[in-house]
Amino acid sequence: MQTYTYDYLFAFTRDTFMKMGCSGSDATTIAEVFLAAEMRDIPSHGMIRLKDYFQLWQKGRIKTAPDIRVVHETPSTAVIDGDMAIGMVPAKASMRLAIEKALATGTGWVATRNSNHFGIAGYYSMMALEHDMVGICVTNANPLVAPTFSVSPMMGTNPIAVAVPAGNEPPFVADFATTPIARGKLAVAEKKGEKVALGFVQDSKGYPSDNPAILKAGGSMLTLGGDRLHGSHKGYCLSAIVDIFSAVFSGANFGPFVPPSVAYLPLLEEKVGEGTGHFFGAMRIDAFRTAGEFKLSMDRWIRTFRSAKPAEGQEKVLVPGDIEREAEARNRKDGIRLVPAVRDDLMAIAKELSVGFE
Amino acid sequence: MQTYTYDYLFAFTRDTFMKMGCSGSDATTIAEVFLAAEMRDIPSHGMIRLKDYFQLWQKGRIKTAPDIRVVHETPSTAVIDGDMAIGMVPAKASMRLAIEKALATGTGWVATRNSNHFGIAGYYSMMALEHDMVGICVTNANPLVAPTFSVSPMMGTNPIAVAVPAGNEPPFVADFATTPIARGKLAVAEKKGEKVALGFVQDSKGYPSDNPAILKAGGSMLTLGGDRLHGSHKGYCLSAIVDIFSAVFSGANFGPFVPPSVAYLPLLEEKVGEGTGHFFGAMRIDAFRTAGEFKLSMDRWIRTFRSAKPAEGQEKVLVPGDIEREAEARNRKDGIRLVPAVRDDLMAIAKELSVGFE
Repeated sequence: MQTYTYDYLFAFTRDTFMKMGCSGSDATTIAEVFLAAEMRDIPSHGMIRLKDYFQLWQKGRIKTAPDIRVVHETPSTAVIDGDMAIGMVPAKASMRLAIEKALATGTGWVATRNSNHFGIAGYYSMMALEHDMVGICVTNANPLVAPTFSVSPMMGTNPIAVAVPAGNEPPFVADFATTPIARGKLAVAEKKGEKVALGFVQDSKGYPSDNPAILKAGGSMLTLGGDRLHGSHKGYCLSAIVDIFSAVFSGANFGPFVPPSVAYLPLLEEKVGEGTGHFFGAMRIDAFRTAGEFKLSMDRWIRTFRSAKPAEGQEKVLVPGDIEREAEARNRKDGIRLVPAVRDDLMAIAKELSVGFE
Repeated sequence: MQTYTYDYLFAFTRDTFMKMGCSGSDATTIAEVFLAAEMRDIPSHGMIRLKDYFQLWQKGRIKTAPDIRVVHETPSTAVIDGDMAIGMVPAKASMRLAIEKALATGTGWVATRNSNHFGIAGYYSMMALEHDMVGICVTNANPLVAPTFSVSPMMGTNPIAVAVPAGNEPPFVADFATTPIARGKLAVAEKKGEKVALGFVQDSKGYPSDNPAILKAGGSMLTLGGDRLHGSHKGYCLSAIVDIFSAVFSGANFGPFVPPSVAYLPLLEEKVGEGTGHFFGAMRIDAFRTAGEFKLSMDRWIRTFRSAKPAEGQEKVLVPGDIEREAEARNRKDGIRLVPAVRDDLMAIAKELSVGFE
């Protein structure tokens, strides 16, 4: 596996998107989100996705010079139309607007339509932290997941990200899909020829399956909780809430109508809105208590949970955000490793666009 | 089992709380929330709880004539101090204030401290519906649930309720604990001498357990997801987010410091805030799109999910809120049944307070 520095991959990603027609500023945003995923050990949302965006651009399914507009607003809310942009661009603009509105009225809430896959949700929620705000971000995604009692893939892995500033402690950053596992883990198991544990997927009739390739045979992913007995209906509620906030609030496509984020899948014939939808929130901590009080309390919350007694065989209890922060420190020191298949894809794109990459 | 009409139990509950010193208006609020739980087939939060409040009142741990105050606010936010009230009273006041703020700025967000158990979260989220708003309500609760990798009961079953208005379809109403099952189900299994399925509780060392009484032997409940492999860390994130919004935002007690909602458990010696905490949100749907567009889109969302293909052996796919709405219709027709133990408790309280009940 080849190892790269942050700066090298950042410059390459930025140059590549500029060659596709992005402004320097937009290309910087996209590169930042790609690299944030790599640094936080979420490679499924990092450099591996560059090929997807490149192919969508080749097919004219995303715009690199979009006209992103606010189409509706109140003092604390807005809806943004992303004009088929690469998702990071309207997403960052939306979170910026949420932060601006929070400065004025205490909180800001922005729903975004006509967007595309935007990378890791955690990036946008964390934008709030430097402003002493709590950041929230959710998005809908390609339908792979069946509601409880159903076999129809109607929902995406619909992630939720919440970032909360602290004082002396590092911030609380939760960023998680509303399914037991990410789709990428099924792909990995399939490539290795392995079975997966029960509780992740079901077959086309709704029976438990351990076949990671079952989605290609009419199967579907299960919601968080797995089965009804263990609360899958709660995972369904969560995923549905994310879908409604992302699409019904904004006028994007919901549920089974969310457009595919890869070029090898055709666009759906039927649509119920515009593109993919996201939802962003920013809440000033001093809209509730003084910032000092809030941070003191959050520090104590974090220390309390970190000092919970570990189960037998476990070393320590984590606070959401710990693992990703440790990964960032490690990857900054050791560099970012790309698997050969990803590196080969990037080389091919670099050649086609005449961007340097080795 | 004895069956009662809504009106009979409502009048009895209202009279009982007035005898304890509540104003007519506060007693009405409390009775409404109790009866909403019974009607929606959530008896664990209904009449069975009257005894808990009665005993807390006897011990002076809740106030029936509280001074509920707004202690901090911005155009879209506020913090309310509940002055040790019975939870329904500050909770309803908080949601009303959130709705008022949403009328002015698009959205309203209220964090509440120094409160107590407030019944079903869904009641408050549904208050938003008649104003064409989305309603949100979460609360923290007595610590029973261990974070992933831990054996310390640090969190409550911390429910999330979200209500979304529709047009011709009934509203979407999700109201769920962030654990696979409610604590009440463990109590029922224990009384019947039955084991429970794996995935709900663990023993004092963190090993899987099927013993419903394990909480009394140092065990703890698991988060939604059950084990790490199946995403328990996502359930932990959710439950933690609810705790932070309820307590760190408001200045209430968080995590293991949440005071017990029953009088037979002593108050904790250490506290990190005031009472129990809640968090409420109201969002005008026309702060995002015209109300007409929003409702049309939500109707289509609901019909899309209701027409998902059922799994083999399942009759239909439900939309969150369907089961509770059907229960309400049935209970309005057939009456509310109380199990003998609950009825006996109510009779004893009625006698003590000289309220009529039979």
